[in-house]
Parts: sequence; C-alpha cells; structure tokens
Amino acid sequence: MADVIGVDIGGTNVRVARVAHDGTPGELRRAPTPFGDVAALVDVVGELVDDASVPVGVGVAGGVTVDGVLCGAPNLGMDGAPFGRLLQERLGRPAVMVNDADAATWAEYRVGAGRGVDDLLLLTLGTGVGGGAVIGGRLLRGGSGLAAEFGHVIIDEGGAACACGNRGCFEAYASGSAMAMGERRASDLVTAARDGDGVAAAHLARIGTWLGIGLASLVNALDPARIVIGGGAGTAAFDALVPAAEEALVARMFGRAHRTTPPIVRAELGDHAGVVGAALLALHAAEETS
Amino acid sequence: MADVIGVDIGGTNVRVARVAHDGTPGELRRAPTPFGDVAALVDVVGELVDDASVPVGVGVAGGVTVDGVLCGAPNLGMDGAPFGRLLQERLGRPAVMVNDADAATWAEYRVGAGRGVDDLLLLTLGTGVGGGAVIGGRLLRGGSGLAAEFGHVIIDEGGAACACGNRGCFEAYASGSAMAMGERRASDLVTAARDGDGVAAAHLARIGTWLGIGLASLVNALDPARIVIGGGAGTAAFDALVPAAEEALVARMFGRAHRTTPPIVRAELGDHAGVVGAALLALHAAEETS
Repeated sequence: MADVIGVDIGGTNVRVARVAHDGTPGELRRAPTPFGDVAALVDVVGELVDDASVPVGVGVAGGVTVDGVLCGAPNLGMDGAPFGRLLQERLGRPAVMVNDADAATWAEYRVGAGRGVDDLLLLTLGTGVGGGAVIGGRLLRGGSGLAAEFGHVIIDEGGAACACGNRGCFEAYASGSAMAMGERRASDLVTAARDGDGVAAAHLARIGTWLGIGLASLVNALDPARIVIGGGAGTAAFDALVPAAEEALVARMFGRAHRTTPPIVRAELGDHAGVVGAALLALHAAEETS
Repeated sequence: MADVIGVDIGGTNVRVARVAHDGTPGELRRAPTPFGDVAALVDVVGELVDDASVPVGVGVAGGVTVDGVLCGAPNLGMDGAPFGRLLQERLGRPAVMVNDADAATWAEYRVGAGRGVDDLLLLTLGTGVGGGAVIGGRLLRGGSGLAAEFGHVIIDEGGAACACGNRGCFEAYASGSAMAMGERRASDLVTAARDGDGVAAAHLARIGTWLGIGLASLVNALDPARIVIGGGAGTAAFDALVPAAEEALVARMFGRAHRTTPPIVRAELGDHAGVVGAALLALHAAEETS
C-alpha cells in the first residue's frame, strides 16, 4: 500500500511529508502559516499536498471540532472557521483532522514512547499545555472533537491567570511559559540548576510538583498505563521536573496502595510527531473504512 | 436469550436481581453486606445468585481493578482483597466486575437519561462523588480499571480536606456531605430554600458553582455530549444546583464560543441503576465474546 500524507499546521509553519506505514517521514515541505485567513490556509495546504491519491491527515495548532471547524486556535487567528469543509473541497476527498497534540499522541502511541500500552496520556509542555489520550486503543476525541484539552483542567480555582481568560488552569502552572523566569527559559533554567543555581532548581521542582498535581487529576479521571511528556519545554526540563511530579502524583493518586503508578516517560518523536501522527491517523481511518 | 443477573454491592446491602434485555429488573433479593471479610462477601453473593447458567455482572461500592481486586473500598472495609478471583471460583464462571458508579453510568447510557449519545459523563453526588463515563460507546475503565474517579480530580489544590486524605478534591466541594450544613441535609436545604431561606439558597448555589467548576475540568478533558447527575443528594438538590453549575461550566469551558454546552440532566434509574447497569454490562460482554 502507498504512503500516506501528514500535515502539521503550526502557528509559524505548515509542514507536510509523505509518511511510510512504519511511521518514517519522508522529506518535509513547508510554507509560512497565513494568519487569520482560512482561504489562504487552504491554499497553502493544497499546494503542499501534491498527491491526490493517498489518504491525508491534518494536525492543527488549535481545537478542531468533528465537523472540521477551527475553534480556540488563537495562534492561527481563527475561531469558528470551517477549515475542514473548505480543505476537503480543495483536496477533493475526506481528510482526517485533529488537534496537533492529538496527532502527536497517536504518533507516540503507534511508533514512539507509547508503544505497547493501550491507555496512554500525552502532555506537551510548550507555550501552553497541549494534551491527548489513547483509551482502549482509540484516540480520545469526545462528542464534539474538543476532548483532551488537559491544559484547561482547573487545578487551583481562582489561582493563576490563564491565556484562556480563566484562572487556575493546569496550563497556568506547568507550561513552558509558567516555567520561564523573566528572560530565562526552561532550557536556561535547567542548565543553571545543573550548575548549582538553587533558585532555578527550586523553581523547577515547584513546577514539577504542579505538574504532578495536574497529572494526579488526569490519572484519577483516565487511569493511563503510561504518561508521555513532550513539547519543547517539557523535553528540555524533563529530568528536572519528573522527580517532583512523581512524588506529587503518588501522594494524590486514588487507590494508591494497590495500583502501579503509571511511568512518566519522555516523548521520542520530537518535532516530527505532528506530521507522523496525522498521517498514521489517516492510515488508520482508511483501514477502518476499507 | 435468557435474562442476565445484576449484583449491586453497597456499604449496607448486597442486592441481586434478574434483569431483562430491555433493562427491566425483576424482584430484588438482598442481604446485609459483611464488613471487612471477603470470604463472607463471596458467600453472600453466591447465595443470592441462584442461577448458574446466565451471565453475571457485579457493581461494587469501591474501586475494582481489571484483575478483580477491591481497591479503595472503605465502605466495605477492604483494600486489596482478591474479590473477583474468589467470586468467579464460587460462581464457576467469569463475572463482569466494576465500580457501582460505572455500572450506573452504563445503565443510564443504555436505558436511562443517557440514551442516544455515545459520549456521556455521570456523577453521583452522595456521601462522596462517584463517576463514570462512556466514550465513543464504550465504558471508560482505564489501564488498571480505576478510571473515572472524578471525585478525586483536584479542583482547588490545598483547599478543603477530602475523605481520601488529600485536599482540594472535587468530592470535598460537591458531594452530599459537602452540601450538608450541620444537621441539615441536601433535601432539608432544598425545602428550606424553596420556603425562602436565603442562607440555604445561597449555600446550594455556592455548591452548584463548585459543581460547575469540576464539570468544566471534566468537559475540557472528556468532552461529553451529555452530563447525568445522580445519587441521593444530586437528585434531591438537582434543581437548586444546576443553574449555578451551568453558569460556571459555560464560563470555563474551552472553546466556548463555538461549541454547545453539554446538557446537564437528572439520572432516571434511581436506586436500581447499579443492578441494572451491572447486568447490562454482563450482557454486553457476553455479546462481544459470542
């Protein structure tokens, strides 16, 4: 069977690659992401997808409803745009369309750090906190397609302000933005902590504790067999965050005396996860309907 | 096809009934629940299940792992007992075994307030907060069987003390116990609020707001198409809680501008939900393997 095509629409670039069935991506083609213009975005994707005969999967930096409406996608400057319908008209065939963290979750599940378990949770710690879950071998999408917005699970009602306009969201405590101290970003702080900077180390441990608190909520709700941490800040600060996160998770997990703590592991696919996962989701959908 | 048998193991009574395929329960047989004695519990259930030829489903007031181990079941005085293995030996056949709120969720999904949607959330507000979810037409169980412990999702880190030993759990804010004011229980407060008691009305509205905050977390994570509220206190105080809960939910839901708020509805099956749901889960399992 032929390759599939994966599309990753980020806030800066649209990236497209052919992907083999084993998840190996071919050469990436890319173009700048147009802001706030759904027709222009459809054109960019249409130009980059040069083969009309294979399944296409698309991951988007924002919410995507089951009807293909972009919803809560501030980095793309669109809220309510019928992107899915327009793109499918342009491509002349159905395309699988999900949030980029959902695509990354599927990629890690099939060919990355989530291989071998059927109940999986992924968090990407970057500008915000993205999330995805596999439950019983199926991607969690929910009734409207907007499930797994774990960054907006409320862990401290009335607490820190979140970019979504509310307070106390997980994202406000454990994102890369929450990790930064002024000009010092997650990777700078990790280096400083390694070099003996106690303030940086204590700050990262505090973020790790919040990460564990949010994970405890998610484990009590979803009971994953493994937790994958990805995203730029999550990958960079992984070793500094995880000991404190595990401690907080174990202390707050329901039924902790008689269950195994799900291992927290680092994402393996890095920057390619979105393209690979979107492609493998399209492949999965094609297999299910054939 | 013959009926199935549903078993509901509560903190006070074990109740057993034959259940028809349309969810209609026959006569209930019951016996007191032995406390802290797994062999005695197996005997009680074995005596009440008088037909060795039909599928049996069991709902338990506590956590049940996929291996049938009771786990976090303080009302039964057991933590770590291999109840499932012992019961299956006694019955001479496999039995489906789940948490009682999971059983109630399946009952509402198949024959109650959850009919017609495939993504459903149930909360039972009683002594604690029990939970269950149907995701894409399947009961959420998780990797170890302990999923959907929504009462222990943390919504206010460091806040009110919870019976589980932690602080800030949803259960500490929205259970029937949290609703009570001294001697006045949920139903008393509802009556008082109706009769013009402003303190009771404001208290219930405050609980409703916390209910909405917890629901927002769960909607952002699971994206259900409908939310069912059951349990003694939840059913009694439903009308007093839901307006404030809906307001808090709408304000905190991710992507609220372009999605429908899942309707919050009252559970329909009341006291029979556990027996009926456990039986229908056994039926479902038998159909899947046949």
